[in-house]
Amino acid sequence: MSFASATHLSSEDGSRWEGRVQPGWDIRGVANGGYLMAMIGRAMIGTAGGRRLVSMSAHFSRPASAGPVGVEVEAVRQGKGFSTLRAEMSDEEGSLVSALGTLTSHHGGSSWEAFGGGSPPELPPPEDCVRAVPSSTGSFPPPFVGKVVVMIHPDDIGPFEGKPSGLPQMRGWFRLGDDEPLDNLAVLLAADSFPPAIFNLDIPIGWTPTLQMTTHVRHPRPDRWLRCRFRTRYLTGDLVEEDGEMWDEPGRLVGQSRQLALVPRPDHV
Amino acid sequence: MSFASATHLSSEDGSRWEGRVQPGWDIRGVANGGYLMAMIGRAMIGTAGGRRLVSMSAHFSRPASAGPVGVEVEAVRQGKGFSTLRAEMSDEEGSLVSALGTLTSHHGGSSWEAFGGGSPPELPPPEDCVRAVPSSTGSFPPPFVGKVVVMIHPDDIGPFEGKPSGLPQMRGWFRLGDDEPLDNLAVLLAADSFPPAIFNLDIPIGWTPTLQMTTHVRHPRPDRWLRCRFRTRYLTGDLVEEDGEMWDEPGRLVGQSRQLALVPRPDHV
Repeated sequence: MSFASATHLSSEDGSRWEGRVQPGWDIRGVANGGYLMAMIGRAMIGTAGGRRLVSMSAHFSRPASAGPVGVEVEAVRQGKGFSTLRAEMSDEEGSLVSALGTLTSHHGGSSWEAFGGGSPPELPPPEDCVRAVPSSTGSFPPPFVGKVVVMIHPDDIGPFEGKPSGLPQMRGWFRLGDDEPLDNLAVLLAADSFPPAIFNLDIPIGWTPTLQMTTHVRHPRPDRWLRCRFRTRYLTGDLVEEDGEMWDEPGRLVGQSRQLALVPRPDHV
Repeated sequence: MSFASATHLSSEDGSRWEGRVQPGWDIRGVANGGYLMAMIGRAMIGTAGGRRLVSMSAHFSRPASAGPVGVEVEAVRQGKGFSTLRAEMSDEEGSLVSALGTLTSHHGGSSWEAFGGGSPPELPPPEDCVRAVPSSTGSFPPPFVGKVVVMIHPDDIGPFEGKPSGLPQMRGWFRLGDDEPLDNLAVLLAADSFPPAIFNLDIPIGWTPTLQMTTHVRHPRPDRWLRCRFRTRYLTGDLVEEDGEMWDEPGRLVGQSRQLALVPRPDHV
């Protein structure tokens, strides 16, 4: 099933959207957060009449399982250049994800500059990276990675072999399956598609519940492959942030993300 | 007027809050975004029965001026450990800021670890930094900086002298006026209190409208001074991100922020 199909929504009134969280887009039965954000983004774009997404913030209330969901969208403000939208994704038991989006009518300039060492990650070509595939015997890697193509930098694959590198980083390539073209919503998905960077620390591998995630789309026309880097700098108490950058093949910054999550603990598993 | 007074809100039903954007907390007549987020945070904490704020996302629709505002808060989910709240700040002409908050009942652990070069900014003591004071003749620095104490690293004060350093960075100390104690809401304020880091580039100094801002509170008990660093890594088209870190005097990470803003242009001024 394509990403476009898995995030498909329909609406009769243009603000209340109905869709289905598809099986297999999950980690231990919990739907991937970036996948849910992409679905919400599709509802926002539909409601805003085709404007493109610049920024989405999502706060996660409950884990989502496969099955029907609704996305209620409200256009808070439709300005000349920018729109603000509120959205709530729910299942029959109540709210799952609350989100805000900023959409724009601007085409986005193609100019860009980087400072302070900002640069795309250096990666071997995809064929020299290691593809993440769902585990046939355990829960890691999860089913979700089978729905996308995640090729991990050979230096960062420690968690797959029980040998974390010690540096909380995950780098690699991302694309959709069957060479499906990327769009802005795929950037939301990519931002949450790699194993948590902290799996490269010597901690138990387990569910890392996302509390909050923001993704900014910095360039609206991504290519086929995204060149990605995810990094954690700080563990404080039971909180951990993960910062992501997604670049296209020619080396333009396509997206930036940050999520705040809970460190895996035995009682989250 | 203290920060506590300037963000004071009252409510009859515990969900619809009334307050007043105070004069002087502005940049060219537009209320500071961190100040508005702090006011919204106060409404969320009031609605959630005293839980503390871990993360707030805000999307800005319209500039706010001094005057009465309402903050409508809805508790989306009140879980055992975490709550999700939605809030909308409006004036008589409509919505100003849409926000989401995650609050917690956890005390927060005191343990922490840093990786990949994460560390507090090295700063001279506050008395060897340069205090930002409102301009008496022009619009920069704005009135807002007179409401707080912002002491800027001598290497980053170029924009005040028409000599930008070329590195989009602002470092320095933050505290409230009259030694008012800091709380979690002051972290939201601090995150938006320094001049934009990009003023250290050779660009026209002007209004830098924030589209979106997220602030995470990483340690719940800040001290008197916050040790701050704000950095921009990427300008893409007319978009710029600014990442902030706020540390306390003993050297613990207190907060992390990211905002997405529009690069100043003559027609924003």
